[in-house]
Amino acid sequence: METNKIIGKHTVRLPSLPVVKGFASVVGKKEGQGPLRSSFDLINEDTSFGEKTWEKAEAKMQSEAFRIASEKSGVSPLQIERMFAGDLLNQCVGSSLASRESGIPYFGLYGACSTMAEGLSLAAMAIDGGFASYTAAITSSHFCSAERQYRMPLEYGGQRTPTAQWTCTASGCVILGTQGNGPVIQSITTGQIVDAGICDANNMGAAMAPAAYSTLSNLFTETSTSPQDYDLIVTGDLGSVGARILRDLFSGEGVELGEVYNDCGILMFSPSQDVHAGGSGCGCSAAVLCGHILEGMMNGRWRKTVFAGTGALHSPTSVAQGESIPGICHAVVICSEKETSR
Amino acid sequence: METNKIIGKHTVRLPSLPVVKGFASVVGKKEGQGPLRSSFDLINEDTSFGEKTWEKAEAKMQSEAFRIASEKSGVSPLQIERMFAGDLLNQCVGSSLASRESGIPYFGLYGACSTMAEGLSLAAMAIDGGFASYTAAITSSHFCSAERQYRMPLEYGGQRTPTAQWTCTASGCVILGTQGNGPVIQSITTGQIVDAGICDANNMGAAMAPAAYSTLSNLFTETSTSPQDYDLIVTGDLGSVGARILRDLFSGEGVELGEVYNDCGILMFSPSQDVHAGGSGCGCSAAVLCGHILEGMMNGRWRKTVFAGTGALHSPTSVAQGESIPGICHAVVICSEKETSR
Repeated sequence: METNKIIGKHTVRLPSLPVVKGFASVVGKKEGQGPLRSSFDLINEDTSFGEKTWEKAEAKMQSEAFRIASEKSGVSPLQIERMFAGDLLNQCVGSSLASRESGIPYFGLYGACSTMAEGLSLAAMAIDGGFASYTAAITSSHFCSAERQYRMPLEYGGQRTPTAQWTCTASGCVILGTQGNGPVIQSITTGQIVDAGICDANNMGAAMAPAAYSTLSNLFTETSTSPQDYDLIVTGDLGSVGARILRDLFSGEGVELGEVYNDCGILMFSPSQDVHAGGSGCGCSAAVLCGHILEGMMNGRWRKTVFAGTGALHSPTSVAQGESIPGICHAVVICSEKETSR
Repeated sequence: METNKIIGKHTVRLPSLPVVKGFASVVGKKEGQGPLRSSFDLINEDTSFGEKTWEKAEAKMQSEAFRIASEKSGVSPLQIERMFAGDLLNQCVGSSLASRESGIPYFGLYGACSTMAEGLSLAAMAIDGGFASYTAAITSSHFCSAERQYRMPLEYGGQRTPTAQWTCTASGCVILGTQGNGPVIQSITTGQIVDAGICDANNMGAAMAPAAYSTLSNLFTETSTSPQDYDLIVTGDLGSVGARILRDLFSGEGVELGEVYNDCGILMFSPSQDVHAGGSGCGCSAAVLCGHILEGMMNGRWRKTVFAGTGALHSPTSVAQGESIPGICHAVVICSEKETSR
């Protein structure tokens, strides 16, 4: 056993540097009208993806993201030995319906909007631990299935608060392998649950920001780095409210995140798209990672990136029962291959 | 990277043999009246665990299982580097509420009733991969929170069908470490999703049995073993209907599971307890593992056990939309220490 992988309580390094073999993003119409439109592999104009229900549309979107990632990576579904998948739907049915014909050994996850970072963490650990040659991480969210489940039926036309985020209709999939020329996963920082006492389900940014602060602080401390050691630090999805809180929490400690910091929920939409505090949903950070971020790393725009997925681990039931919203954040450090001592 | 851990597409061996440092089970009143009553660490007589809602009771039950497992193992919560947790509640809030004060890096899972086997698989892989010195796997289910969510409010007094299973009020927790004298995890067989086309949410045994058959077949084939190479093969939870189907599926291939085979849903209750096809719920197999099975292994009753958790990956929404029920099964081979070539 190589105990030297453990850098700190939350952080492990992955000496074998699992490689991003391929990735794909699939989004709905509104996301396809946003500033990242050119980075997505597939934009569905009516967001139904040809299905009769929003839940089936979400599953279809996830199947498509996997199909395209597999094609782009050159890795056949038959070669993939572990799939890590999850979504926001009750009992994560978007993922189980999407993967039921794949034949791939499957681990179901629930990490709310942190699911992509959680899945990528576990998929990379499965490779580095010697348990698989190829793994996949996938997630999705759908505005219409999420609104119905978490808030109101769309037909109700409920008013949204200024702190509310817009659940993205989006899916992202990453396929990892042991060898190749893509970006590599250098380390994983696993979050503990942080509950800041926020009870407003329309202010998830505030509920998740303290968890992001906890995990990023642990990452910097345990790896002896500071924000300026990275080209890009991106949370997903704190939105504008949560991102502001995160910056303030670090400023209070004398640390400025500065221009290297951004958030997937902010990146996904332009201010004119009327999404209030920004995008959210498992699919938001997944589609931004599996387009904008990984493309930018392939193109040399960024060489060392922190992808920090943030999740609000509440349910409509827990909120109705007066419980505050537990937050979590998982961080993955992704490097261009040449930047690492491979 | 040690690629020789990969025995087959679904199966990996764990050369470092992660050790069961401790385990605990907590159950409700009805489970405490069943044949396994002496194996549980805590039985709550009113199943509310002192809380005001069933969901909070479930979280409390999970906290208690963790507390007792930590005490029994001698491993402090501060030493545990990764927690793998999940449950049946929408957005898995039983687990997130239970773990929010633990300070342990946390991976949320959704595997329905297979969650204990899924968590145990990942917790063991995290140890064997060199990513942690101590890990924990935990899950729970509660009859009252599950009935409300999946079927009818209890007050409705709905009739149950003969194939229906009884969601156990139960939680189980296992703590793993790198060294010690407990039983060890020898191999992991990860299931792929198998959908047999069953649409009846009151017949989960039939929906899950083909997945159990798939995973156990893969285990036997990939490790070149047969049922008679094990002292105990236990599924959790097919109940009497699903267990019969599983036996028949193997018989059709000329393989008899024989007397080494049993099911946690059958073990949990006596026929006089009126639970129809048996127990179910994440907590059922977890509490049977973390009592009856692991105690039996500590006492020398069994030396080589297959713990095969089975899950039905549907939701009330997916069933209402006419979708069939995807099943999954994850198997973990647990050995008495002296039986392995440690």
